[in-house]
Amino acid sequence: MAIRATVWNEFRHERENATVRAIYPDGIHQTIATALSRDAAIDVSTATLDEPEHGLGAQRLAETDVLLWWGHKAHGDVDDAVVERVAQRVYEGMGLIVLHSGHFSKIFKRVMGAPCSLRWREAGERERVWTINRAHPIAAGIGDAIELPNSEMYGEPFLVPEPLETVFISWYQGGEVFRSGLTYQRGAGKIFYFGPGHETYPIYHDAKIQKVLRNAVHWAHNPAEPWTDVSSAPNVSIAAAREPIEQRGGSLHAPGEDGFG
Amino acid sequence: MAIRATVWNEFRHERENATVRAIYPDGIHQTIATALSRDAAIDVSTATLDEPEHGLGAQRLAETDVLLWWGHKAHGDVDDAVVERVAQRVYEGMGLIVLHSGHFSKIFKRVMGAPCSLRWREAGERERVWTINRAHPIAAGIGDAIELPNSEMYGEPFLVPEPLETVFISWYQGGEVFRSGLTYQRGAGKIFYFGPGHETYPIYHDAKIQKVLRNAVHWAHNPAEPWTDVSSAPNVSIAAAREPIEQRGGSLHAPGEDGFG
Amino acid sequence: MAIRATVWNEFRHERENATVRAIYPDGIHQTIATALSRDAAIDVSTATLDEPEHGLGAQRLAETDVLLWWGHKAHGDVDDAVVERVAQRVYEGMGLIVLHSGHFSKIFKRVMGAPCSLRWREAGERERVWTINRAHPIAAGIGDAIELPNSEMYGEPFLVPEPLETVFISWYQGGEVFRSGLTYQRGAGKIFYFGPGHETYPIYHDAKIQKVLRNAVHWAHNPAEPWTDVSSAPNVSIAAAREPIEQRGGSLHAPGEDGFG
Amino acid sequence: MAIRATVWNEFRHERENATVRAIYPDGIHQTIATALSRDAAIDVSTATLDEPEHGLGAQRLAETDVLLWWGHKAHGDVDDAVVERVAQRVYEGMGLIVLHSGHFSKIFKRVMGAPCSLRWREAGERERVWTINRAHPIAAGIGDAIELPNSEMYGEPFLVPEPLETVFISWYQGGEVFRSGLTYQRGAGKIFYFGPGHETYPIYHDAKIQKVLRNAVHWAHNPAEPWTDVSSAPNVSIAAAREPIEQRGGSLHAPGEDGFG
Repeated sequence: MAIRATVWNEFRHERENATVRAIYPDGIHQTIATALSRDAAIDVSTATLDEPEHGLGAQRLAETDVLLWWGHKAHGDVDDAVVERVAQRVYEGMGLIVLHSGHFSKIFKRVMGAPCSLRWREAGERERVWTINRAHPIAAGIGDAIELPNSEMYGEPFLVPEPLETVFISWYQGGEVFRSGLTYQRGAGKIFYFGPGHETYPIYHDAKIQKVLRNAVHWAHNPAEPWTDVSSAPNVSIAAAREPIEQRGGSLHAPGEDGFG
Repeated sequence: MAIRATVWNEFRHERENATVRAIYPDGIHQTIATALSRDAAIDVSTATLDEPEHGLGAQRLAETDVLLWWGHKAHGDVDDAVVERVAQRVYEGMGLIVLHSGHFSKIFKRVMGAPCSLRWREAGERERVWTINRAHPIAAGIGDAIELPNSEMYGEPFLVPEPLETVFISWYQGGEVFRSGLTYQRGAGKIFYFGPGHETYPIYHDAKIQKVLRNAVHWAHNPAEPWTDVSSAPNVSIAAAREPIEQRGGSLHAPGEDGFG
Repeated sequence: MAIRATVWNEFRHERENATVRAIYPDGIHQTIATALSRDAAIDVSTATLDEPEHGLGAQRLAETDVLLWWGHKAHGDVDDAVVERVAQRVYEGMGLIVLHSGHFSKIFKRVMGAPCSLRWREAGERERVWTINRAHPIAAGIGDAIELPNSEMYGEPFLVPEPLETVFISWYQGGEVFRSGLTYQRGAGKIFYFGPGHETYPIYHDAKIQKVLRNAVHWAHNPAEPWTDVSSAPNVSIAAAREPIEQRGGSLHAPGEDGFG
Repeated sequence: MAIRATVWNEFRHERENATVRAIYPDGIHQTIATALSRDAAIDVSTATLDEPEHGLGAQRLAETDVLLWWGHKAHGDVDDAVVERVAQRVYEGMGLIVLHSGHFSKIFKRVMGAPCSLRWREAGERERVWTINRAHPIAAGIGDAIELPNSEMYGEPFLVPEPLETVFISWYQGGEVFRSGLTYQRGAGKIFYFGPGHETYPIYHDAKIQKVLRNAVHWAHNPAEPWTDVSSAPNVSIAAAREPIEQRGGSLHAPGEDGFG
């Protein structure tokens, strides 16, 4: 069965800025969706900020195996309730791929629990994305590095938790470095942050960048059944204990009562 | 200079429940504060939920090096603005020690970015807290294990991110296990979660538990200057680049403009 | 294409000890091989200590995608050159699953770089293997826990590096805990340590244990091309630098010379 | 009490190569020792390859809290027995700081359990060592970056295990990146790898590099009592079990017998 990927895009700059529109006339989401759809094992759809519920209603999320997230200027317009819904689906097992300026999106900050800040410069300088672990499935077919002739600089310190794996680190012409490919796990959900993708350069038209995105969809897909009660804290009754025990000492909760969380 | 530790307590159960009051007549925070104050290198104060701003105004937090957090039934009463203020101070370098039922506090969920759920049972059963790394400073002087004759069971799965270090794992009489001592880093702040501490048992009167808390205050203290702009994403101008570069390609931002985050 | 798994067994206790032979008349390796072969996607073979080169010649290793390792009383009889050959294949991408008493095998200590010591007791007590992350592919289909009516106790502290992921933690009747399912990465190779498996109890006949082993073979398989030069440190000539540079300052090496390692 | 640091140096290039001797006339170890001795809390001594037992006899190691290691052309001349002795002391709690070309030393490969390979180029190009976590004690007082006008390039992929913490990442003029400051833990011992230090450039004369080394000595020092039996796997008798149990099922070991490891 194909992996159901949903490409989410803010889709504002493409409509308001001629430079961006020239590169992504149908929106960044459409370019990425087209790139993903070259893999027959990926079933792609899209969603954007200005759709009802930002296109991320409960049903849509339930039918999404991997969500890709691109946002930049309108992070603040994303509804908090939708962010919580997305976070919950990540915990249940939906993969999440956060792209470029999505480092400051509500959802990324939500699941990182960290500032997610960085340094930046929009000078069109060269970026070289080095593969740290060429044996990682996200780096399959990429080789030593991806060369981007024009890119926005994202520089360290990048205020994220220590990752599970460092997959890519970028070199910039202006002198900085950046951990541009990082993996995380939250609940049953696998998370990949990928740095390249500034909207004034044709980065999502690059063949290797597209390959990384397809690889990442496969990697982030967790085929396990959704862990729907992942956020609940059930009481285990004394009768249900695996070893025989008896009640002792003081008690706060009535029998069978839920926790206070 | 002494480490400034603030012990925060919800302080509700001690006033409402006779069992708890009998064990902690002045509140859990006072018992912990007394335990910490046996170490001359720790300067202790307390704060509670029902004080203005929960006792955690900006000035108080600025003068706190390490914050200990105990809450249970009233997590929902903690103001979101205070939670954000605490999170920001953690990112700047304040240590955070989250105790027992604080696993479901807003601040812990905020900095973990994860569900923080677990299984539980209040049966007064035995808990044995095994030291995984006796060479860790938090475990100094603890020996192989801490024996708690009566404890609340907290069982796996505990839905937190993989920790930097697993310091303690607990065994329960009823058959469960629990990672009861875990370390994390968020921004400049060091975080320690410590499982034992149910309010109907005299756990914070235990000498070894008190030793762990003193150790943890020392461990969580980051003597570096507060990283006050840790959450901002500054532009690095082309003129300020460490290597000479020139503007190329399209641009989205006006010169010197802040990011959209 | 099927995953080529090789089950390696010391195969001494089964021939020398009547208790063990009664449980594993054809050797532990045969019981495990039979369990793996129930998965049509796994192509199984075996190798044992007393075969030439311990059954792990260069050709055999080159044709192994995942190696499972069971040893106990004869760790010292394993040839150091074979250990190096296996380690090199792990670095190149071969998966390695180390079982039970293999914690003290030369190959496990070699790739951990740590003492790998633990506490133990052979009392036939109950072990309960708790699933920490039920969404991990190694835990697929296992549920909350595996109940083993008789097991050898392996207790913390277990002197291994902090793992990438903690998949299982065991509870023992006698009061101990043990991190019994841990993942690591070395070079391109994925490593899984799995605790249960003492030879005087029929643990490898347990259906859930067999399921874990099949799952682990899938997880440890890295489909990437073998990274055959993973251990070499090539010189990058000035002419081959991705940015134009010129020789400056003093020099130690002649042009094109290899490093000293 | 002062931290007892021992600076180990191969001390061959300084005697054989005029370029190196001009920069380090008394040897790299003396320059580092002088830098460390500016901190009154560090008590420094040195040891070199051509001393008996490489200057690392059992008594000397027992009196060393933190060992710094510089080697390059003669890794193969280091006696395996000394390597094992050093590894054992690391497990017991001695800190280990591995410098530059020490990435290919026997001791570093021994405790990493990984290839430790990388790419390199000796062109005297610029290196900029970026601070990833300025709040880390190893980075105290360093600021955003260390600028090295001439350095040897060390490039990714660097085949080491995922670190506990990434403290520094380097940028090179020729286009590469390198994780140049990484922390690990093995047993009770803390390990720091630090990339800069090629012998044909005066890198250990740099004030910030010297500050990192002093910081690292403090960080790597574990004040806990040496864990002298860290590598042994003791039997826990049934009588000594913390919960009452009785012998059941088959048995392999005679009572009180040691394991096979």
